[in-house]
Amino acid sequence: MSYTNFPSKLLENAVNEFSKLPGIGRKTALRLVLHLLNQPKEDVHLFGSSIIQLRDEIKHCTSCYNISDTSMCDICASPKRDKTTICVVESIRDVMSIERTQQYNGIYHVLGGIISPMDGIGPSDLRIQPLIEKADKEDLTEIILALSTTMEGDTTNFYLYKKLKPHQVSVTTIARGVSIGDELEYTDEITLGRSLLNRMPFNQNNQY
Amino acid sequence: MSYTNFPSKLLENAVNEFSKLPGIGRKTALRLVLHLLNQPKEDVHLFGSSIIQLRDEIKHCTSCYNISDTSMCDICASPKRDKTTICVVESIRDVMSIERTQQYNGIYHVLGGIISPMDGIGPSDLRIQPLIEKADKEDLTEIILALSTTMEGDTTNFYLYKKLKPHQVSVTTIARGVSIGDELEYTDEITLGRSLLNRMPFNQNNQY
Repeated sequence: MSYTNFPSKLLENAVNEFSKLPGIGRKTALRLVLHLLNQPKEDVHLFGSSIIQLRDEIKHCTSCYNISDTSMCDICASPKRDKTTICVVESIRDVMSIERTQQYNGIYHVLGGIISPMDGIGPSDLRIQPLIEKADKEDLTEIILALSTTMEGDTTNFYLYKKLKPHQVSVTTIARGVSIGDELEYTDEITLGRSLLNRMPFNQNNQY
Repeated sequence: MSYTNFPSKLLENAVNEFSKLPGIGRKTALRLVLHLLNQPKEDVHLFGSSIIQLRDEIKHCTSCYNISDTSMCDICASPKRDKTTICVVESIRDVMSIERTQQYNGIYHVLGGIISPMDGIGPSDLRIQPLIEKADKEDLTEIILALSTTMEGDTTNFYLYKKLKPHQVSVTTIARGVSIGDELEYTDEITLGRSLLNRMPFNQNNQY
């Protein structure tokens, strides 16, 4: 089905822009645009300017590269956070995910991606050098690698481990195993195999 | 899962605006906003301004109420279109749907909705009066009611029919029956029953 017969060039432009978003097809784009067209002018101005303002004014924390309204993010600036532990993540989405667990009190380092030769992303495209510089600071004790448990994540983990090994800092990774709530029957064999190899002492507080 | 711990107020604003769109939850909104954040500034400006410009500058055709960049839409202004037939539709999306079929050469009348007491939409909220005024014009021969085949659509059809009956114009509705490609086994009984009642002479060109 073609959606080329737009009654208005302005409408067509807006639909084109919306359908550039990931996961938004032309049919959905048209639905969203027509919805906005029925909203009050002020609301549509708020919508459009919120994203323009975000793009124009957003800053990245100069320390951890997390998104921030100021030059140092709230997490790095907080006196309550433990500055001796750095958690290495791929993106700011992962920072938000870990913050939601309320289980981590250290600071972060946002790599800005993972090594992925298929997508043409090599180590030099990521914020690896600043991380290695941080590793030399005396007060740092632990670097936690919290990347995706994919092939690219593993590759990046290994690369970072090799780079960080010569430094005086312990390097750890997040635990892998059967997800909480998963049934063994439906767990893939690699996860199940690794969870057996990396079995740990029973701890009542760790159960579901 | 809560998504309240945004590292940036600007980010939170943009996510809030996106999640007001129909069918866009906060998780999807965050994904779309982070995608835009990674795009060049000019592209994000184009995105934001396209929708603002659309909302500020869009016009509705003074004749059929279709969306238009000018005071009369391309369809109403075209000398090739048959001005003796008006197709009554709910929204401009339906105009686009019918135009895509390339089976209709008349003009349109966009009601701006259908009668729906549940949503508080009565006849006075729709563009019914201008339609009735058109019905008195001498050169008009047919008004086709092309509304949704729902209860609200049927109610609106009946209301329009009663209003148009005293005028010198034939009122028709689009055919209802089993959709092309549908299997009888999975067709609901109301559609199947009506398709039997409204059976028509076999026409080779009308088959799938």
